[in-house]
Amino acid sequence: MSVFVHRMRSGTRRVAKLPVGVRACLVAMALLAGLGGCAVRPPGIADLQRYPQDTSRYLQAGTAETLLIPPEVQARLDARFNERFFAPWQQKKASIPAAEAFWGVAAFGRKQGYAENLLPLDQARWQQLVAALQQESYPSLARPAITVRNTTCRVFPTSRPFFYDPRQAGEGYPFDYFQNSALWAGTPALITHGSADGAWLFAETGFVAGWLPAQDVAWADEAFRATYQTGSYAALLRDEVTLRDAEDNFLTQTHLGAIFPVVARDEAGLQLLVPVRDANGTAQARSARIAPALAALKPLPLQPGRISELANRMLGQLYGWGGLYENRDCSATLRDLFTPFGVWLPRNSADQAKSGGSFQDLAKLNRTEKRDHLLQQGVPFYTLIWLKGHIGLYLGPDPASGEPLLLHNMWGVRTTDWNGREGRAVVGRLAITSLRPGEERPDVENGRFYDRILGMTVLPGIEAK
Amino acid sequence: MSVFVHRMRSGTRRVAKLPVGVRACLVAMALLAGLGGCAVRPPGIADLQRYPQDTSRYLQAGTAETLLIPPEVQARLDARFNERFFAPWQQKKASIPAAEAFWGVAAFGRKQGYAENLLPLDQARWQQLVAALQQESYPSLARPAITVRNTTCRVFPTSRPFFYDPRQAGEGYPFDYFQNSALWAGTPALITHGSADGAWLFAETGFVAGWLPAQDVAWADEAFRATYQTGSYAALLRDEVTLRDAEDNFLTQTHLGAIFPVVARDEAGLQLLVPVRDANGTAQARSARIAPALAALKPLPLQPGRISELANRMLGQLYGWGGLYENRDCSATLRDLFTPFGVWLPRNSADQAKSGGSFQDLAKLNRTEKRDHLLQQGVPFYTLIWLKGHIGLYLGPDPASGEPLLLHNMWGVRTTDWNGREGRAVVGRLAITSLRPGEERPDVENGRFYDRILGMTVLPGIEAK
Repeated sequence: MSVFVHRMRSGTRRVAKLPVGVRACLVAMALLAGLGGCAVRPPGIADLQRYPQDTSRYLQAGTAETLLIPPEVQARLDARFNERFFAPWQQKKASIPAAEAFWGVAAFGRKQGYAENLLPLDQARWQQLVAALQQESYPSLARPAITVRNTTCRVFPTSRPFFYDPRQAGEGYPFDYFQNSALWAGTPALITHGSADGAWLFAETGFVAGWLPAQDVAWADEAFRATYQTGSYAALLRDEVTLRDAEDNFLTQTHLGAIFPVVARDEAGLQLLVPVRDANGTAQARSARIAPALAALKPLPLQPGRISELANRMLGQLYGWGGLYENRDCSATLRDLFTPFGVWLPRNSADQAKSGGSFQDLAKLNRTEKRDHLLQQGVPFYTLIWLKGHIGLYLGPDPASGEPLLLHNMWGVRTTDWNGREGRAVVGRLAITSLRPGEERPDVENGRFYDRILGMTVLPGIEAK
Repeated sequence: MSVFVHRMRSGTRRVAKLPVGVRACLVAMALLAGLGGCAVRPPGIADLQRYPQDTSRYLQAGTAETLLIPPEVQARLDARFNERFFAPWQQKKASIPAAEAFWGVAAFGRKQGYAENLLPLDQARWQQLVAALQQESYPSLARPAITVRNTTCRVFPTSRPFFYDPRQAGEGYPFDYFQNSALWAGTPALITHGSADGAWLFAETGFVAGWLPAQDVAWADEAFRATYQTGSYAALLRDEVTLRDAEDNFLTQTHLGAIFPVVARDEAGLQLLVPVRDANGTAQARSARIAPALAALKPLPLQPGRISELANRMLGQLYGWGGLYENRDCSATLRDLFTPFGVWLPRNSADQAKSGGSFQDLAKLNRTEKRDHLLQQGVPFYTLIWLKGHIGLYLGPDPASGEPLLLHNMWGVRTTDWNGREGRAVVGRLAITSLRPGEERPDVENGRFYDRILGMTVLPGIEAK
């Protein structure tokens, strides 16, 4: 019997419980690829060839410039986005109870972790990790701050990984369970605690909380916060955008999904404020000019054509568990994609589904009913499809086959070999697939992806049909 | 037939060619550990139990406080250490030809790389990586700088990995071939180039060259360099030492192997200068007090007892390919271990063997001759044993068995299963072993470690017996 588990990372909850599900790994690849031969044909799925990997191909005729929601509704969403983004600076104290801030202690303390040498993590190291949290004195701070570069939000104050048994399919590298999320440069935070050695700070941001390297953030004093909150914000429209000051000095480099305050605009583009860290660890705002192709005033017109345009810039990019290497997982992809439109999404898939818009529970429907429901009720380019531990954007029906299509950043498809051994057909990128990915393979169970669909969520400002 | 390949990372050359050899991986672990059972007995080697993992146990009676070399000779070595450490600041221009600076283009362009999703790296990404180097304009800068935090020196300006086929034993994670070396905070550098996006800087340091994240370094102007080169330097004596300023603000955290200028000393410890980066990216020197247990004036008395003491602090720490996660590989371990003594070692194993002291070629000796030669000529705690792609410190004979013992940071031992399939018995840490590690295992070839010994190097200031 072949079982299908599509993928696994729900993205990270604000303060997340352990995501359930399993993950693909190279063992699976070895098994699938024909056991050690020298052929290097990736053990993929046919959908990537079957469906052109270009979201614009799925725009329905005449809809590219249709406004999905009324501009005044979008303006309210955008204002609310900004409120949430800067909310940590309004907080007077930590908002997260210790049990949630240190959820990793209970969640991983029960498990046998594996270290970066792929051997079991020993008890001494675990105890050091727990001691580094200084749980007894939490919260010890309430100090506004901002990230001055892309950084990593960790469950424990360490850059070293915590794997599950690498011999299991879907475990081991890259599934480091201490990796919570990437954070782009310019993310406001409230720092509420520090690690025992001071090298890590516990941060609450608008969408994720966890440990950041101390030198990646700067303290945001009152003057800085006043300067920085101009009320007008620009969204980056591409990945790997370099921000330079007027003298052409490198300030930082960041990605689609980042936003920065606007201080001026003209035909040559926008003038933004970019936070830099001074020798005291305090944030200073530096001015950076940016070309119109790289950043625009938020919110962008909420049209399928614009969503498609931004999605295409990310399409094919590699999967990044918890934002590893500044890549995106399923939920981070959606969050970043909708940021320029002023549509706020939480960081993890379950929260995105439940609170990102109007949620419709599909769990009890059968496969055909799910398909019909999506085709009838889904708003192309503006509806999320949620599975256990996974999420993607509904693009509408494929014009050729009529199959509902999904844009999603997926690790891979569960496979089962003749021996009953589980593996993964790795996709490992942002892709467009049907809701039956990999089912052409004899080792992938039919209908399992459908079975795992729990609901759909029409994004905000639009009423479900 | 069983073959033995001990490990593989030579450490990284200053500007390294591709290290030859293969590496252990989790596939091997799965094979060795009894195929997917739930038992989690690490597939290790008996030497770790057989030989107490405590270097002080191998100090020969009465030698702990023996000076290995005359103090005046050591003082000259230490002065030369400082010259080499600060040499990049004396350079007026790049010293590395383009072909060496960009050795990765030729070395990896011929190979099929694998990306962080464990699938083959595609040609488009490879071309982006090559374009990011801006080879045509190299060298474009000659600007002194200093690392302001522990950082990573990369072969290409990216944090994303380049693996070889993860299905091969000893390939895949953690063997990221773009990982060149870790650099501790406070490493002087000459910046000679920048990546296309400005986010990475090409640095020449005294012992390694490669790409660093731009925000991890600060420009060291003339005033800073004059202030910083006090002529008196302290070495950290432990890992994970936090440096704080007089107001107790976190400056940075770094490790054994780092050195900082001393401005004052008294019974409460030393006052050091620590480089911090200001809002313009320029280095400022901040003062930090440090307790005597954490740092001492360099050079420490060159006694086996002191070497043993520092080595024990690192013993058991996990293996870090190219300094990944601020762990150490074989050669980095030795370099950091001898830094407090003012004994300069290059960054990679071959260079350490050849130019770290008086090299003796043992390649042509048989196993017995090698053993006898080491026992007769090796200076315990002050002699390197060099294998193809590996290096360690000779500790002398085991008092119980008489076997020559080696302190070395090793990934694992090559195994071959009944099917002829190659694997690794992973050790993945700094350990004390005999020169026959793993030979109790039926899947490890006898004598292979000895066969791979190429030479020994008595460290400087001492004449070979």
